[in-house]
Amino acid sequence: MRNGVNVTALAATINAVRQQPKLAQFKFRARNQWDTGGHNVATVHDFYGTCQDMEHKEPFTMHADEPAVLLGEDQGANPVEFVLAGLSGCMTTTLAYHSASRGLNIESIESEFEGDIDLQGLFDLDPNVRPGYREIRVKFRVKGDADEATIQELLRKSPVYDTLANPVKIKIEVEKV
Amino acid sequence: MRNGVNVTALAATINAVRQQPKLAQFKFRARNQWDTGGHNVATVHDFYGTCQDMEHKEPFTMHADEPAVLLGEDQGANPVEFVLAGLSGCMTTTLAYHSASRGLNIESIESEFEGDIDLQGLFDLDPNVRPGYREIRVKFRVKGDADEATIQELLRKSPVYDTLANPVKIKIEVEKV
Repeated sequence: MRNGVNVTALAATINAVRQQPKLAQFKFRARNQWDTGGHNVATVHDFYGTCQDMEHKEPFTMHADEPAVLLGEDQGANPVEFVLAGLSGCMTTTLAYHSASRGLNIESIESEFEGDIDLQGLFDLDPNVRPGYREIRVKFRVKGDADEATIQELLRKSPVYDTLANPVKIKIEVEKV
Repeated sequence: MRNGVNVTALAATINAVRQQPKLAQFKFRARNQWDTGGHNVATVHDFYGTCQDMEHKEPFTMHADEPAVLLGEDQGANPVEFVLAGLSGCMTTTLAYHSASRGLNIESIESEFEGDIDLQGLFDLDPNVRPGYREIRVKFRVKGDADEATIQELLRKSPVYDTLANPVKIKIEVEKV
């Protein structure tokens, strides 16, 4: 074990994927049920990977809401904050796993994330303002063997970092019921 | 109230922003503390908006982990699933708020999200494979006044939809401690 990662199993996983690339095809899923106003509940349970349908041990539910200033009742983080949380988790795990794979011991990882949103975009007040994040700033404080340049390199391998930094194709289907 | 949204307050908010665009500048934040392996904990509490520092009623903590097949202990959804949860919450809230603003009553919103990730990207096995989501498919089932074309239009105003569909500038700072 290194950094809490079973490096033997990690090497075996990477080798299995190298032999059979179809094992690497994963599909992740979420469902969402609107309650009212800014409150809704997402559930994550099943996914697909290594050529089979799988499930988490238990379903994970996540309440999203808006704070009072954005006309909600503050029953959960808001959706754009969930994205920062996902980015933070992904960059952290990517650093821990890749460091383990390279034989680098990590003692601690702490990080802070801040992103800018101009609500003129969401409210359709200025066509030149995008509704989403304009910029996200990330600070990592790391204790361990990896040097700064290596940490910078490894953090950029994060799937959520790539998902945000580069465009993703999104297909939307709507059914009236 | 329409769709659980105070439409008088919503119109007042939009009008205030139209008069003073700096009220629309929001900064959302998250912190993350690594535990071990694929387990880490994100916290969302303070944010900035309407020209002042604010806080949620309480800090929201989110445990991320990986399932056993990805060498974790499955103590929470994984980071790429958090992104789908954020997308689901944001598209749902955007539909509820914009429909309310247009005088359209919505009775129910349910949705499903599925995204494709090829782990050859994360594992550095193929430089042509991106680590993040290649494609995300979204299905909405909506009961209410809005017609299908309007729903399609409103869902695309979502800040998280825009954040994923288009590139975001991300700056990374690393400190060795």
